[in-house]
Amino acid sequence: MSILDFLRARKKAPTASIAKERLQIIVAHERGQRDEPDYLPALQKELVEVIRKYVNIDHEQVQVALENQGSCSILELNITLPDR
Amino acid sequence: MSILDFLRARKKAPTASIAKERLQIIVAHERGQRDEPDYLPALQKELVEVIRKYVNIDHEQVQVALENQGSCSILELNITLPDR
Repeated sequence: MSILDFLRARKKAPTASIAKERLQIIVAHERGQRDEPDYLPALQKELVEVIRKYVNIDHEQVQVALENQGSCSILELNITLPDR
Repeated sequence: MSILDFLRARKKAPTASIAKERLQIIVAHERGQRDEPDYLPALQKELVEVIRKYVNIDHEQVQVALENQGSCSILELNITLPDR
């Protein structure tokens, strides 16, 4: 399953046209062998910490999804940023 | 332009079936207002540093693309990991 297929499958109805600031981060890890360890769950926390240096986010505003499709793991972070 | 459209436009022919380990990271930043500062170029370096804690990568193996589409900025990192 490619990243494109993954995104297409998850695509939601368009949101209201209010101009919210949003960040979406997708990390796709294609492993050469299926039995390699997967570090995406650990990576996820560090990514949020890096982003927090630039914008003010709290954990409630971060939606996380992690999916495994054979040898491909996909981490998706959706962050809605607060109004300023 | 949605992230999905962006990916569809950039989709390349499938690569050879050699099982290389790869990481793809996509960061999409939808700004509420067009004139806000964009921190994706700075974020890029920090993301690579975070990933380097988990896997051994060198800068030559990191391909970076940054595109701006109106109020949406998309950062794409493609990393081919070395054979072990």
